[in-house]
Amino acid sequence: MNLSKTSTEPDKDIDKKKTEEETLDLYKQQAPLQNLLYAEKKHSLLIILQGMDAAGKDGTIKHAFSSMNPMGIEVKAFKAPTDEEKNYDFLWRVHPHTPAKGMVQIFNRSHYEDILVPTVHKSLDKQIIERRYDIINSFEQCLVDSGTVILKFFLHISKEEQKNRIAERLNIPHKRWKYDPADSTEEKNWDAYVETYEKIFEKCSKELPWFIVPADRKWYRNYFIANEIVKTLKALKMKYPE
Amino acid sequence: MNLSKTSTEPDKDIDKKKTEEETLDLYKQQAPLQNLLYAEKKHSLLIILQGMDAAGKDGTIKHAFSSMNPMGIEVKAFKAPTDEEKNYDFLWRVHPHTPAKGMVQIFNRSHYEDILVPTVHKSLDKQIIERRYDIINSFEQCLVDSGTVILKFFLHISKEEQKNRIAERLNIPHKRWKYDPADSTEEKNWDAYVETYEKIFEKCSKELPWFIVPADRKWYRNYFIANEIVKTLKALKMKYPE
Repeated sequence: MNLSKTSTEPDKDIDKKKTEEETLDLYKQQAPLQNLLYAEKKHSLLIILQGMDAAGKDGTIKHAFSSMNPMGIEVKAFKAPTDEEKNYDFLWRVHPHTPAKGMVQIFNRSHYEDILVPTVHKSLDKQIIERRYDIINSFEQCLVDSGTVILKFFLHISKEEQKNRIAERLNIPHKRWKYDPADSTEEKNWDAYVETYEKIFEKCSKELPWFIVPADRKWYRNYFIANEIVKTLKALKMKYPE
Repeated sequence: MNLSKTSTEPDKDIDKKKTEEETLDLYKQQAPLQNLLYAEKKHSLLIILQGMDAAGKDGTIKHAFSSMNPMGIEVKAFKAPTDEEKNYDFLWRVHPHTPAKGMVQIFNRSHYEDILVPTVHKSLDKQIIERRYDIINSFEQCLVDSGTVILKFFLHISKEEQKNRIAERLNIPHKRWKYDPADSTEEKNWDAYVETYEKIFEKCSKELPWFIVPADRKWYRNYFIANEIVKTLKALKMKYPE
């Protein structure tokens, strides 16, 4: 996996207008599938969204899941650990938010931050970070064994697109609240993040593959994710209880 | 590990009276060590108690930790999973009860029940049970990496001692409330439980060994556990913050 050689744009022969129509159709399919998931209560769906700052995680949540019934879906954003959370292992704050049977859970950032941040900022013993890859694989296997389906999306944007979006946050009044000076600091760590993501995709994809989403164009990103979700839910061959 | 060849009695040359005196001395040492743990807030202590029915888990908690400050110690008993808990993976109900830095946590039964019960009652796919050994090892490693010290005690009693204690529960008025008809049913599964425990001791002892506690004599059981706790806490070489 070489992220810099992986396109952040959709293939050239993909038509925007047609894709947007297909996306609307996918949204329409999501609602009944989610209802079935909720009624059957055999599986749950966990969606993990990762990406650089301004990669579009919030936008994805706003759009790609908007047709779902809020009763059956929850969003949990993982920010820097609080003082309380630092008193426990890194999965302690994550585990309670895993989805119950019948539910859809979105992680806006996730336990993968606990590999990314300490690696890039060299804030933790290397051996301990190294073990986290296996610990995460085991944690996800544990969820899968209880009926959770996990979809892991990396929203892949180019450095230029990131720069544009962060600038936009400063210049457009209703986006300014999203501007965080830390984003610009983290820009400098772009290469270190890319390298760590590549290692994550290599070591944490055996059982549950990562989807690298070309995310420079929001219309394509939304299509890609909605499509994977519908495909995955259909494959469960769910049935309403008698 | 062959449990049937492992004694449930203390060695013959161990003097009861002298041991009881030593136990009282160990209790006296526990309180200041626990205080240090609480003040330093670098480590936490997780004590896992497993054993057959009537092996003395409740009695151990009542006696072997009685000198500790209740402010810094919590007990969590794991019974059969509730309907809500069944909607999640088997570690979901366990994880929130792991100890914060500075705290002592006792598990009266634990996540090991999620190997024992489905194995003995053949209530789960074999492959899924098999994976739980690795998932538990990984889970415990994750706790250890965040500063948790884990002590795993198996209270080892003989079949005869179990029979006596269950009979006692029926005959002594203030013990009758502890009698559970299910205990007698589980008696029949003695050999299957022994076999599963042996497999657990084999597969889940590499990083964190199990202590097989000869537990037919309560005075020796209490000594054994208090001694391990004091030894373990001393080895942390804790210091009060400046």
